[in-house]
Amino acid sequence: MDALARAGSLTSPLRDGDMLAAIDLGSNSFHMVVASYTLGQLRIVDRLRETVRLAEGLDGKGGLSLDVRQRALTCLARFGQRIRDIPPQRVRALATNTVRLLAAPQSFLVPAETALGHGIEVISGREEARLIYLGVAHAQPPKAGCLRLVVDIGGGSTECIIGRGFQAIERESLQVGCIATTRRFFGNGKLTRRKWREAVIEVGSEFQQFANAYRALGWNEAIGASGTCKAIGEICAAMKLTKGAVTAEALPQVRDRLLQAGSIEAIDLPGLSDDRRPIIAGGVLVLEAAFDALGLARMAVSKAAMREGVLYDMLGRGGEDDPREASIGALTQRYGIDVAQAARVEATAIRLFEQAAPAWKLDSDDLLMLAWGARLHELGLAIAHSQYQVHGAYVIEHSDIAGFSRQEQQFLAALVRTHRRRIPKSAFDALPDRLLGAARRTAALLRISALLHRARDGDEIPRLELEVEDSRMTLRLARRWLENRPLLRADLEGEPADIAPLGVQLAIAAD
Amino acid sequence: MDALARAGSLTSPLRDGDMLAAIDLGSNSFHMVVASYTLGQLRIVDRLRETVRLAEGLDGKGGLSLDVRQRALTCLARFGQRIRDIPPQRVRALATNTVRLLAAPQSFLVPAETALGHGIEVISGREEARLIYLGVAHAQPPKAGCLRLVVDIGGGSTECIIGRGFQAIERESLQVGCIATTRRFFGNGKLTRRKWREAVIEVGSEFQQFANAYRALGWNEAIGASGTCKAIGEICAAMKLTKGAVTAEALPQVRDRLLQAGSIEAIDLPGLSDDRRPIIAGGVLVLEAAFDALGLARMAVSKAAMREGVLYDMLGRGGEDDPREASIGALTQRYGIDVAQAARVEATAIRLFEQAAPAWKLDSDDLLMLAWGARLHELGLAIAHSQYQVHGAYVIEHSDIAGFSRQEQQFLAALVRTHRRRIPKSAFDALPDRLLGAARRTAALLRISALLHRARDGDEIPRLELEVEDSRMTLRLARRWLENRPLLRADLEGEPADIAPLGVQLAIAAD
Repeated sequence: MDALARAGSLTSPLRDGDMLAAIDLGSNSFHMVVASYTLGQLRIVDRLRETVRLAEGLDGKGGLSLDVRQRALTCLARFGQRIRDIPPQRVRALATNTVRLLAAPQSFLVPAETALGHGIEVISGREEARLIYLGVAHAQPPKAGCLRLVVDIGGGSTECIIGRGFQAIERESLQVGCIATTRRFFGNGKLTRRKWREAVIEVGSEFQQFANAYRALGWNEAIGASGTCKAIGEICAAMKLTKGAVTAEALPQVRDRLLQAGSIEAIDLPGLSDDRRPIIAGGVLVLEAAFDALGLARMAVSKAAMREGVLYDMLGRGGEDDPREASIGALTQRYGIDVAQAARVEATAIRLFEQAAPAWKLDSDDLLMLAWGARLHELGLAIAHSQYQVHGAYVIEHSDIAGFSRQEQQFLAALVRTHRRRIPKSAFDALPDRLLGAARRTAALLRISALLHRARDGDEIPRLELEVEDSRMTLRLARRWLENRPLLRADLEGEPADIAPLGVQLAIAAD
Repeated sequence: MDALARAGSLTSPLRDGDMLAAIDLGSNSFHMVVASYTLGQLRIVDRLRETVRLAEGLDGKGGLSLDVRQRALTCLARFGQRIRDIPPQRVRALATNTVRLLAAPQSFLVPAETALGHGIEVISGREEARLIYLGVAHAQPPKAGCLRLVVDIGGGSTECIIGRGFQAIERESLQVGCIATTRRFFGNGKLTRRKWREAVIEVGSEFQQFANAYRALGWNEAIGASGTCKAIGEICAAMKLTKGAVTAEALPQVRDRLLQAGSIEAIDLPGLSDDRRPIIAGGVLVLEAAFDALGLARMAVSKAAMREGVLYDMLGRGGEDDPREASIGALTQRYGIDVAQAARVEATAIRLFEQAAPAWKLDSDDLLMLAWGARLHELGLAIAHSQYQVHGAYVIEHSDIAGFSRQEQQFLAALVRTHRRRIPKSAFDALPDRLLGAARRTAALLRISALLHRARDGDEIPRLELEVEDSRMTLRLARRWLENRPLLRADLEGEPADIAPLGVQLAIAAD
């Protein structure tokens, strides 16, 4: 049985009527969607939205203003009440661009998690892009074979995706969003034509970096997702320019009417909510730059967004279609990992996990991390033999790996970093406290597994008994088997001292 | 004309009677070989060897003792006299394991280069392995199709290579050498059977890591290269155990006779020079571990070593068979680099180089670095889009890249690191002073080239004139052409400020 199947067996499968929730700590609004699982489908039963404007609280040095922080915590506490009765493994809360920009994200995330009563994961811009695409694809299933461009202008970043079916093919995330752009170019509240022209060029140069590649791939339809695109579509409709889509003819008229106002305060666009007035200028600006760079004629509008994608992604997680499986496979291939050795280490790690999991309260997520850590532990060999655990951890921490949150990548990176040689004190620094215990213990299991297979042969380990109690681990191996392996014996002798920085006391018995 | 051809045209080709020299700053001895190029062949005309024992000077904290340092400098000054009349582009001086272990290599390398009168490059263990194999292959050409194992026990490290023809297939470098191992296990001068057994296991575990992979690949013949193997072969012959080879039967008898001495001082092995007595115990120990782990029956002995490999490698460098070309190709493939974009940037970089090279005194080596930097500048995109210049530089700096010295890799890494976004002050810290000027200026050329191609289209740049004078650069572009490229214009406007940390004052003119 492989790790995924085992992980599946540790969690109860979804049953009719089960509830799931996705929470999106966006730069403009926080959203929560709650869905019920019915007959293999998700039915959205509740939506909450609060305009927190997290991005407004950024001070340019990676700090967050106190009032915005308070607004965020209050909102999360309210969301938390709504999910109290949903089992934690069916809730995922994700933070995006603004939290990515914080200098000390933990100082926000720790109270935020307390307020919500649930862990919050930070995801990369390109993972955000993947989830947005997934959300739109489920809300408006694309025609077979049809290529679709999705543009999502958020508060802090903009995502552009080309995909087919439910699969994103190209994913880009740009550091231009409606709040950030409004602040950057119209921070004084004035709207002038000259400033606008300059701004379109600057924002356009962000799109330019991938525009040619996107145009070469092409698309059959373009969809604008989330609040900003939806709002601009509504303005177009209210101005009787379109029936709700955004077009290359309509957009300049919206922009001209915007500029006629002369200031943000005076903006008077039909169909625009008061709530969105302060940030619509940046939104129209980014959309105009996107239309220019990508040569768009028409963009349909979808109100679907990342949160819906998160819900559908949760259905796949831990199952056969876990998107993370494909990503691990892609890394294995790119870095030419020795799959036979990886499989041996993984199998032993799983044997150890099963014996340690009950006492150490490790769950199915930890098992998946351990299995994937085993599969990737030698990744760094593709860079250099010496210090390969450092190189592997670097690549895993910094790569865009579809399906993984940042914390999950940091977890994996820590496992790889500590699987051999000296364990640095800082190896787990990036992880939130709530994951520390599981990460250190999982790391100990991977480290022992890798050590047991240093000879790289296919020999079975006849006896492999692990007892754990608090931080103590007792590993029992067959004396006969060990006797023929003097190198392994020598390695094992040094291991209790070497592994100690993981916070475990290892004893090895041969009988 | 591609960069290699252009680089070739900047240097005069080898002519009959030209002299070449290779200097090897080994951990045990320093060697120099001088060869003359005759009818397309190399004929060794001079060999110098001094037992410097650089590894003995290591203090465990990366420092080098003053007397050993002085011994090294005196030797290099003598070597320097011998190469005074050889043009510098025909001399290569390489440092290996001991210099790799120095905490502050520059504080040794700078006076060493002054004493020698020539730059000294540090190479990685696996590059050392490649050059050793090349040296042995040229000294004793292998039979067609024959797989050959080469083991070279140096003072500080041991290299194990499997190759076919002149090509190394597997290269490993272990942190066990005859000096280091003698110090580590027999530091008190005593030789005991018990300590020996322990030591063979510890050293063996280093070989164990790759022994199975090597045995699976297999070999038709095994050759021991360099001084230690040659000395042990001579002992075997003097003990009438073999005719000069080392065998699985002879080696234990040599070891037993060694252990009978009881102490290093009392070692009395027939055929052993006084010079080698203090370090032979470690040598026999490492060889025994190699025989055990690799299951060797017989090892022929070659006196060829890295220095001969360096000479033959120099013949290929800068020409069509430059081994570095193949390495750049392999990186391009592994990291899926967009070759069309890389080629556009490379072509523009070469156009700029040709205009700047005379006034800036850039040479053919700088051109090669620039061209390779252009080919690799987007490597980091395989890891993540955001900060990809950082990821690319990391991979290039830390990878085992066949054919490159460490400084060359650091040069390339610095070009990649600084080709976009903010240029950190530390980007060139790893480079020796003598390369700084060329590296910064080459980096400026690559940066401008990458910027000019940000649109990623195939458009020709109609006018591209570069004038340089000291640190001033004036770039002239066609006004008409620029007028249609507002994004590029905006990028160019900011560039004089952004590029300033490279120590250049950039002016851009459009006419």
